[in-house]
Amino acid sequence: MRPDNRKNDELRLITVQRNFTGAAPGCVLISAGDTAVLCSASITEELPPWMKRNATPESTKGWLTAEYRMLPGSTSPRTSRSDKPDGRATEIQRLIGRSLRSVVNLEQLGQRTIYIDCDVLRADGGTRTLSITGAFIALKDAILSIQDKLPKPDESVILDSVAAVSAGIVNGVPILDLSYCEDVNAEVDMNIVMTGAGRFIEIQGTGEEATFSEEELQQLLTLGKKGISELFRIQQTQSNR
Amino acid sequence: MRPDNRKNDELRLITVQRNFTGAAPGCVLISAGDTAVLCSASITEELPPWMKRNATPESTKGWLTAEYRMLPGSTSPRTSRSDKPDGRATEIQRLIGRSLRSVVNLEQLGQRTIYIDCDVLRADGGTRTLSITGAFIALKDAILSIQDKLPKPDESVILDSVAAVSAGIVNGVPILDLSYCEDVNAEVDMNIVMTGAGRFIEIQGTGEEATFSEEELQQLLTLGKKGISELFRIQQTQSNR
Amino acid sequence: MRPDNRKNDELRLITVQRNFTGAAPGCVLISAGDTAVLCSASITEELPPWMKRNATPESTKGWLTAEYRMLPGSTSPRTSRSDKPDGRATEIQRLIGRSLRSVVNLEQLGQRTIYIDCDVLRADGGTRTLSITGAFIALKDAILSIQDKLPKPDESVILDSVAAVSAGIVNGVPILDLSYCEDVNAEVDMNIVMTGAGRFIEIQGTGEEATFSEEELQQLLTLGKKGISELFRIQQTQSNR
Amino acid sequence: MRPDNRKNDELRLITVQRNFTGAAPGCVLISAGDTAVLCSASITEELPPWMKRNATPESTKGWLTAEYRMLPGSTSPRTSRSDKPDGRATEIQRLIGRSLRSVVNLEQLGQRTIYIDCDVLRADGGTRTLSITGAFIALKDAILSIQDKLPKPDESVILDSVAAVSAGIVNGVPILDLSYCEDVNAEVDMNIVMTGAGRFIEIQGTGEEATFSEEELQQLLTLGKKGISELFRIQQTQSNR
Amino acid sequence: MRPDNRKNDELRLITVQRNFTGAAPGCVLISAGDTAVLCSASITEELPPWMKRNATPESTKGWLTAEYRMLPGSTSPRTSRSDKPDGRATEIQRLIGRSLRSVVNLEQLGQRTIYIDCDVLRADGGTRTLSITGAFIALKDAILSIQDKLPKPDESVILDSVAAVSAGIVNGVPILDLSYCEDVNAEVDMNIVMTGAGRFIEIQGTGEEATFSEEELQQLLTLGKKGISELFRIQQTQSNR
Amino acid sequence: MRPDNRKNDELRLITVQRNFTGAAPGCVLISAGDTAVLCSASITEELPPWMKRNATPESTKGWLTAEYRMLPGSTSPRTSRSDKPDGRATEIQRLIGRSLRSVVNLEQLGQRTIYIDCDVLRADGGTRTLSITGAFIALKDAILSIQDKLPKPDESVILDSVAAVSAGIVNGVPILDLSYCEDVNAEVDMNIVMTGAGRFIEIQGTGEEATFSEEELQQLLTLGKKGISELFRIQQTQSNR
Repeated sequence: MRPDNRKNDELRLITVQRNFTGAAPGCVLISAGDTAVLCSASITEELPPWMKRNATPESTKGWLTAEYRMLPGSTSPRTSRSDKPDGRATEIQRLIGRSLRSVVNLEQLGQRTIYIDCDVLRADGGTRTLSITGAFIALKDAILSIQDKLPKPDESVILDSVAAVSAGIVNGVPILDLSYCEDVNAEVDMNIVMTGAGRFIEIQGTGEEATFSEEELQQLLTLGKKGISELFRIQQTQSNR
Repeated sequence: MRPDNRKNDELRLITVQRNFTGAAPGCVLISAGDTAVLCSASITEELPPWMKRNATPESTKGWLTAEYRMLPGSTSPRTSRSDKPDGRATEIQRLIGRSLRSVVNLEQLGQRTIYIDCDVLRADGGTRTLSITGAFIALKDAILSIQDKLPKPDESVILDSVAAVSAGIVNGVPILDLSYCEDVNAEVDMNIVMTGAGRFIEIQGTGEEATFSEEELQQLLTLGKKGISELFRIQQTQSNR
Repeated sequence: MRPDNRKNDELRLITVQRNFTGAAPGCVLISAGDTAVLCSASITEELPPWMKRNATPESTKGWLTAEYRMLPGSTSPRTSRSDKPDGRATEIQRLIGRSLRSVVNLEQLGQRTIYIDCDVLRADGGTRTLSITGAFIALKDAILSIQDKLPKPDESVILDSVAAVSAGIVNGVPILDLSYCEDVNAEVDMNIVMTGAGRFIEIQGTGEEATFSEEELQQLLTLGKKGISELFRIQQTQSNR
Repeated sequence: MRPDNRKNDELRLITVQRNFTGAAPGCVLISAGDTAVLCSASITEELPPWMKRNATPESTKGWLTAEYRMLPGSTSPRTSRSDKPDGRATEIQRLIGRSLRSVVNLEQLGQRTIYIDCDVLRADGGTRTLSITGAFIALKDAILSIQDKLPKPDESVILDSVAAVSAGIVNGVPILDLSYCEDVNAEVDMNIVMTGAGRFIEIQGTGEEATFSEEELQQLLTLGKKGISELFRIQQTQSNR
Repeated sequence: MRPDNRKNDELRLITVQRNFTGAAPGCVLISAGDTAVLCSASITEELPPWMKRNATPESTKGWLTAEYRMLPGSTSPRTSRSDKPDGRATEIQRLIGRSLRSVVNLEQLGQRTIYIDCDVLRADGGTRTLSITGAFIALKDAILSIQDKLPKPDESVILDSVAAVSAGIVNGVPILDLSYCEDVNAEVDMNIVMTGAGRFIEIQGTGEEATFSEEELQQLLTLGKKGISELFRIQQTQSNR
Repeated sequence: MRPDNRKNDELRLITVQRNFTGAAPGCVLISAGDTAVLCSASITEELPPWMKRNATPESTKGWLTAEYRMLPGSTSPRTSRSDKPDGRATEIQRLIGRSLRSVVNLEQLGQRTIYIDCDVLRADGGTRTLSITGAFIALKDAILSIQDKLPKPDESVILDSVAAVSAGIVNGVPILDLSYCEDVNAEVDMNIVMTGAGRFIEIQGTGEEATFSEEELQQLLTLGKKGISELFRIQQTQSNR
């Protein structure tokens, strides 16, 4: 039995608030159970320095990058504010960036940079996958705000949708969308990022001080695919509003 | 005429959401017009290292410290994430800490540290004074959660209430509670922090590339006192809920 | 009775040595009682990067910035040399910069940067206000050395003089120009920066773990104005040499 | 056709030199084709600070941690020396540490820390997986040197062997053990870490600016398992010397 | 002919002001020509952490360490403030520390640390050797202030005196005590540190983009010994005051 | 008697492997007894920023710089990986750079930078001098690879050879090429860098907590010259292969 009585293949309740503060063109407050992440998508009309150096004036390629942090008050006890993204945050923000880039046609973004900022307001497990799911909605809103200024204003630079979810094995049982108290007891932890077309963007399966069999791997993949298909339904409902 | 048609001595609309995410014992989302700050108050059962070194076992003195940051997506264009507080953030978080400490009886807090985290979700002027006003509400909620564990559980360690507001001179006219577009044009900028009993905690009046007369100083003080008395009414309404 | 028998409204003995080492065009060793600060004003024929980026070739606007540090041997016991300016130093050097900029016509400085370096050789209270008072003399000497190269060589880019002093309430009594042992016991601490024309540049009144009434505020302002008018007399005597 | 005429499921030539410099108790120079990594395993008789704080005197639990860096001369053109691990190095060293910890019985290591240092002498693709494969051999040598001092000297604290390999999809074709020029052209990149018993420790499959189907995932897993079984044969040959 | 008409084996004019600010127990302003260094010697009743860890309660060994910085205004044009010592400053402060430690009986200092701070107020060549010569005087004054508290109050912990000077080859001619404009043109640069008893503490001879013969080495050593013997005379005169 | 039965004027066994990994154009693994250093020489077709700023298009001057680090596993117990080069590493890499620059005709190198990376694989004393001796061989190989592209392809930009060795006084006896256990007991430590033509590039003689007489200085110089002449023979044998 799971602490909140969920079934093993059941997601937590997902809520989405688009345009939450209105400061950035994409600004989404997404929550899954007690986990809440503020996902902002900002756009600057400039390439990052490493791209700018080599870009020709006629190039239409842009870039997307992501930052991830947990606010100190997002956990109890409080998490110290860290000087630099620590190892875990570095990994997560690289994952968020890669995941979103894989569905954006950077070649038609124009010489601009999209910044995705995922700031965790409350952390109860699954912050990295929820960040990806929420950031995609913010990204869509942000790109909508510059659609007219794109090199090809009539084409979408978003090639597919993206959502992500966690799965894991706790006490030998594969379950979907782990909360924090499940996560700390998990023998195996897997994060799955997929496209709306059902293709994988990223799979990360880790057994910290444990290992997993091929059969368990397949069970986790099955759970993940089920969860992600539900997330896409939620994303779509949101976007149509 | 002010951009949002306010009178010169009129505050922006203030909204307060207590227990916003529920992670920290005090967790307040406060907004004034378009400015929004998430104020968390967390408590750790440990003194900061510099106090711990010199504390005797029977000492009942505690500490309160504050951190202030702007989320990157809180402004448009986006603000670069600075994990270390820059000069401005350093000044502000020191001000927040001093202001709240002046109404807390640290001697009866017990050997613990209260962390105030003010994370600006949207910045449209007045973030430092709004942080103080909101943080005081979060502080009260947090202390309520440990009231039973205090050295003297029957006494309040909060000696008075605190609120803060800005005033300034724009185009020669003294006005209250400046929004961002007023702030950048201000000749003189003043931040005032006061207690519920009507005493000053802090006055900072600054003329960047400008100066001000004694008469203007008095006008700004009058505006500030009026605004703060309204903020105390709002705080009280909130606290009674 | 004050430790050095001063009257409550009496400054410490002020001494000024212009051209102290001769390395920088402005180089002033100023002391107030046991507090001694070396104030250097250096000029580089280049804007700071953030201004340079946006400056047109015909722009005549320059910049002035300040740095403040305490030498490790300026206190007993020794102060550790800090990697970066700590919170206090950051606040102080921003105050010094703002104060001097408010009397310089940056628009007629030409595309150059004036660096004010205030290095405290001995710290016995009042280092920030003494830094401002001394730095103004160094600034005048430095600008004199480039007067011929200014966009308008016949006009002064220094619009007014600047001096600063501290006042505070110790054991309930308002006093002027606090030494270190008075400062640590002060209930209220105020720093006042004014122009020769009698206008305020900056007022910072702080009650650390204390508060102050409107009447006390006015008493401190009166003390400050008296002290500053004497400092202007001393500055003028110096400049005429 | 692969650049070095390998078959799609063929490893590069693997060479292993144990006790390469003799400074650390485990010191292995491992190479796969042109990629060469120096893997050192050092042991200190002290827990890391975060464990030490909470360890009881009778606890027998130890720790293992890993660091990964590329020497500047390991690539052409030269890679700038980064003393702090960048995002990529952070990810890799966390992966190495997790992978080795999953086969070490930390509970019976005693209050000591094993440091795994993987310094890449030449980088031609697959440095992270080769680091794991080589570090396991160094780890075994290092633990052998303290076997007598372990809490249970008659039991092995190494529970299983570990090896790792990369697989990827290049021009639509799944291949094993990518060299650098294959890696930069890969649509999908997968790193697989397994135990000698055939269980997974870690799977990381990434489509940077690309995605992959379920069928492709299975093909990559099959390649990886084949490569890893060969690496175990090589490790065993080495260990018996 | 040298720029200031000195003979090739002639020192610049040396001035010494003991107890310059009075904050630290040793506080010497020393100048050689236009070069001026403030040398402070402070004493803390605590060992540095790395010594403290291994010190037994009855140990009487202390430590001496040095820091060296150039104030930004010490050069024209201004030198950027580097809070961390750069490569050059690191070398110099290590040299100062080693030089003074070689004449102090650390074993009889007691468990305390002497901090030598050499802050260059004006830099015109020879700052590192002048720092050593001045710091020795400050060190003597500082130790005098704790002579009564030493483990053996009747014995001197200063075993010999120390002074240092530079010599170099400019346009093929060996000269003593180079000023800045000589230093930048020098083919060979040598710093010599000696004891009052005529023994070497340190010799550093460097040919940047040049080399020197054995004969030239001997000529430089001869110049250095002559200069240092004069510096000892000056030190002694000072100390007797 | 020395620990390894060497005579007082005898070098340790020197081995040299040119083209060790093949990644950089110069890549030498050099060892002296148990000390082993990997010396890489890489070439980038760009000046360092500080030179680039002032270089005219027709300038043919280049630069050479060096970095030195010890791998964590090069010592037992392990050396912590340091964030930045510490004071010792900073000194050493500056010495290596100066020494090699003194025999390179930078004026005919073209607008490129040579990076010398000396990474110590095993540290048993004499790492800095062995780095210089090995780096010179790597430098020659690297320059050979660009000889055709030099401004004057028919002239050598290497003006002379360079080698270095240590000497020291242990228990009152001057000895050559100290191993680690000799080095820690040395009263005096000297590093000597010379050219093939028998001229000095650098002499650094240091008495940490000790001093040395003029006679001892001469004995150390004699030992150093003998050792260096043997190193030149070894370098030459290598280069002719």
